[in-house]
Order: sequence, then C-alpha cells, then structure tokens
Amino acid sequence: MSQSFRITQLTVIGVGLIGGSMARALKGSGACEKVLGCGRSLANLEYARRLGVIDVIEQDVVKAVKDADVVVVAVPLGAIPELFRKIDGALKSGAILTDVGSAKGRVVQQARETLERTLGAFVPGHPIAGSEQSGVDASHAGLFKGRCAILTPIQETTPEAVAGTRRLWECIGARVYEMTPEAHDQVLAATSHLPHLLAYTLMHTLLHTESREQIFQFAAGGFKDFTRIASSDPVMWRDICLANRDAILAMLQKFNTDIECISRLIREGDSEGILEFFSHAKAARDQYIVKDKT
Amino acid sequence: MSQSFRITQLTVIGVGLIGGSMARALKGSGACEKVLGCGRSLANLEYARRLGVIDVIEQDVVKAVKDADVVVVAVPLGAIPELFRKIDGALKSGAILTDVGSAKGRVVQQARETLERTLGAFVPGHPIAGSEQSGVDASHAGLFKGRCAILTPIQETTPEAVAGTRRLWECIGARVYEMTPEAHDQVLAATSHLPHLLAYTLMHTLLHTESREQIFQFAAGGFKDFTRIASSDPVMWRDICLANRDAILAMLQKFNTDIECISRLIREGDSEGILEFFSHAKAARDQYIVKDKT
Repeated sequence: MSQSFRITQLTVIGVGLIGGSMARALKGSGACEKVLGCGRSLANLEYARRLGVIDVIEQDVVKAVKDADVVVVAVPLGAIPELFRKIDGALKSGAILTDVGSAKGRVVQQARETLERTLGAFVPGHPIAGSEQSGVDASHAGLFKGRCAILTPIQETTPEAVAGTRRLWECIGARVYEMTPEAHDQVLAATSHLPHLLAYTLMHTLLHTESREQIFQFAAGGFKDFTRIASSDPVMWRDICLANRDAILAMLQKFNTDIECISRLIREGDSEGILEFFSHAKAARDQYIVKDKT
Repeated sequence: MSQSFRITQLTVIGVGLIGGSMARALKGSGACEKVLGCGRSLANLEYARRLGVIDVIEQDVVKAVKDADVVVVAVPLGAIPELFRKIDGALKSGAILTDVGSAKGRVVQQARETLERTLGAFVPGHPIAGSEQSGVDASHAGLFKGRCAILTPIQETTPEAVAGTRRLWECIGARVYEMTPEAHDQVLAATSHLPHLLAYTLMHTLLHTESREQIFQFAAGGFKDFTRIASSDPVMWRDICLANRDAILAMLQKFNTDIECISRLIREGDSEGILEFFSHAKAARDQYIVKDKT
C-alpha cells in the first residue's frame, strides 16, 4: 500500500455484506477517516452506525456523494441505473466512483447510458469474496484478505481512477486483476453464477420430490456444503441472472450437455466411461484445491 | 447401549474410511475386543494395523469371517457379489453380516442370489456419514456420532441380526432408522447421489471451457464448498451409479426439467419468476439448516 493513500471521506451506498466489509476494512487499515453510509433503509443505516461500520448517515444520494473521495456502490445490480442517473455530475473533481456488482457488462452499458459527467471517474469492480449470508450483520474487516478483486476499466475510465481503486483494494489485502467486462462475465458465469443456479435448482428439485420430509432428514455433510450457496440473497441473484443472462445461459447449455452425457453413460451401464468421467472431475478438483492452498 | 453388547471379534472387510472408522469407534466404545482386518491390499492392512485401527490381518476371506461375531462388509459395491459368494456358509452360528453400501436394492438382490446359508444373518445397512476423503488415513472414531445409520432388513433377515446391528450402531453414537431398500435408494438418490453427480459434472463442464485457467484462478469459497464432493472416490461413485441406476436417472430427469425451467425464466427475463424460484429454494435450505442444528 502506498503511504500516501488517504481517503478523507468514503461513501458507501448500500451498507450490506460487501459495502459494510469494505467500510470496516478501510477504517481498520487506517487509510480512511470517515465513512458515510447511504441506503434506502434508515433502520439498517442506524444499525450499521451502532456497529461502528459507518460514521455518518445521509439518505439523499446527491448529498451523500458530493464530498466523498471515493464512492462505493454496493447495491443490488437492478438498483444501479437509477442511482447512476441521480449522482451523475454530483461527485467532486478527482473523486472515484466504483461498484462491486457481480456482472460487469451490463453495468458498463448502463454507466455509458446514465453517467455523462462522471463516466471517467467510474471504475467497474468486483471482489471475488462473499458468503451465503448477507447484510451488514455478516460484514467483517477481513473479508477481502488474500482474495481477488477484479477491475474492468473501460476506455473512458481515467488512469488516475483505476490507480486509486487498485490502491483501495490492495490496502485491504486484496489481489487486484484487470480484465475486460466480457472476460469477467464469462469467468464468473462459470465459477460462481452456474454453481449458484445449480444449488438453487437442486433445492427446487428436492422440494418437489414426494419423499421430501425424509430427504431432508437423511441429508449429510456433503449436501449441507453443496447447498450452502442456495441460502444466498434471492434479489441479488435474480439481478445477476438478468444482468449476465447470455453468459449464464451459455454455461447452463454446456452443463446440460454434460448432464446428458453422464446420464447416457449411467443408462448404458458404461462402467469405464463413468469411471473416466468421475476421475477427470476429481483430478481437476484436487488440483484446484492444491493450487488454492499455495 | 445395552450393557450386554459385546463383540469378541469384529471382522472388517475393506479397511477404508467407513470400515476403519467403525473399527476405531467400536474399539473406543469398549464393546469390541479384537478387530480382524481383511482386504486385497496387504500394504493397506499393515498400515491400518500400525495405526491401531485393526489388530489382526487375514487376507483369506473365509478364514477372516469364521470366528467373527460381526462381519462388516465395507468394500465398493461392485466387489460385493464375489465376496458374498465366497463367505456364504462360512460364518459361525449367531454371527451377524452387515454392509455399509450406499445403494441397497442391488445389494439385497445380490444377497438373495449369492447367500444361501447366510441370508438370515445379513442386515443391509448404510451410515449417512462420510467425506470426500477416502482410505483408512481419514478414518476416525467420531465419524458416526449423531449421524443416521439406515438399516434395510428384508423378510429373510432374522430379528436377532437386526437387533444386534442396531445395537452396534447405537453403541458408536449413530441414530438408527429402518426402511425398505427401495425407500432408501430413492432418498439417497436425491440427497447424496444427485449432488455428487452435479459436482462431478460441473468440474467436467469447467474443464472443457476455453478460459479454464482463469476460471479456477478466480473461484471463491462458494465454489470450493460446492465442488468438495467432486473430490470423492471415483470407483465408489461409479459403483453407486451402476447399483442405483434407476433412482438416479429419475432424479437427473427431474433436475433437468427444473434446469430447463430456470433457463426459460432467465431467457425470458422473467424477474418475478426468477425471484420466486430462488426464494423458495433459499427458504427450504434455511429451514433445513435450522432443523439440522436442533
């Protein structure tokens, strides 16, 4: 972290798991003097202030952003366009605007449609960290330590805004990567969006199975871990599905083809084929875990 | 646990995660004097003896079972028929034969085909406990504490054998349930076999995605938990798929229909429909976790 990196005022719009954890981490790092929290629920903001996550409450978004050095937008994706429209031109000169949305192509498109005067200050971002829990309750200062933060700057983004956002993430322990919004959306569709959809869908399938009472009674540890992400916030995930529709549908299609493949192997009792399918999958997963530990 | 429950000799055929954990737990409970280990790999048996999991090694299965009070068969499902054929009639009078296979219908059918003199002593069983790890290395005495052990006795099973097997599991902390082999196989297809197949298939899909290097680089905690079971033993899971084929294919079919449903909702941008789908899934998963904790 650069010694000179200082945020006099950080404004967090949407003080939930991610916004709250960023506020906590930046305050904890010593880089940030004051955190202003903004959001639709006054009760949530007051709770966040009592928890020490934010220092000041301001529900008027224009007032909330006007003195900020950095504005972090951490609302569900669906709420971004209206918010951008309101704050365009309201930030002071040199301020940074960044977001944490899980899909980037749509956000970039919306930014181009809604941000006229503030587009250069906007750095689309996404920390690869989270939890099936949501809300400021679950926020903590260590959430981003050692995790990846992906930035997807566009042509219009100023180099200063990118550099500042990079230091912001580095300062709270994240490893920063840059890629295009399109590359981000394809990678995330595969590693995050598809697994979430599978977990939600599995719960759906089991809910509509005749013996569902027994099913849940006899579920073991594997089931618990596998379905953990099905406890994630439905609104957030609805918005992700709408925002990253094409990449998600493409992954679902690929997955479907593979499900048909393993179904056929099982139907035909193809012992060798099934073993090969599972062995490749296990090898890939074991290798991933080894890499993850290094 | 009944005070009178004593096993002078326990024979474990297949000293891996489950067989090894049963041996450890029964010795730890004080109910079992001596554990004889049997299996194809002498190196594994010698390792298990050095670890204190078993006391005696005997690779001849007929000799291994002849003095046992209880014989636990903990080999992959595919190895069961040949084993049953060899040990039929070799157990002493009053001894119990039980297994721990993850699919019961096929085992019962094979038992009826291969066990002539020992069928009454056979209690098909399945502890709902395990790990993506396998082998005696991962075995531990507490694996079954508070977990379910399902017994699926058949018409031919003697009441004494069922009672003895029940006490054996209770004595190491498991809660014992009885159901038909068919009911067992349907429940397990839903809660265990389907999730394992989805995890294996997801790894397969990602492995064959162009950007797979990046994909694994940017995978987060949700992905790690979701795919944990894809590190499970491929031979064991190949055998489960072959043994419980019909119930598994039925679940895959149901799941496929639900994947088509959510794909359609996403394709059509049906915001309300997606939210409802996710909300139901989350509610079911949250409720399951609450029940699991009680």
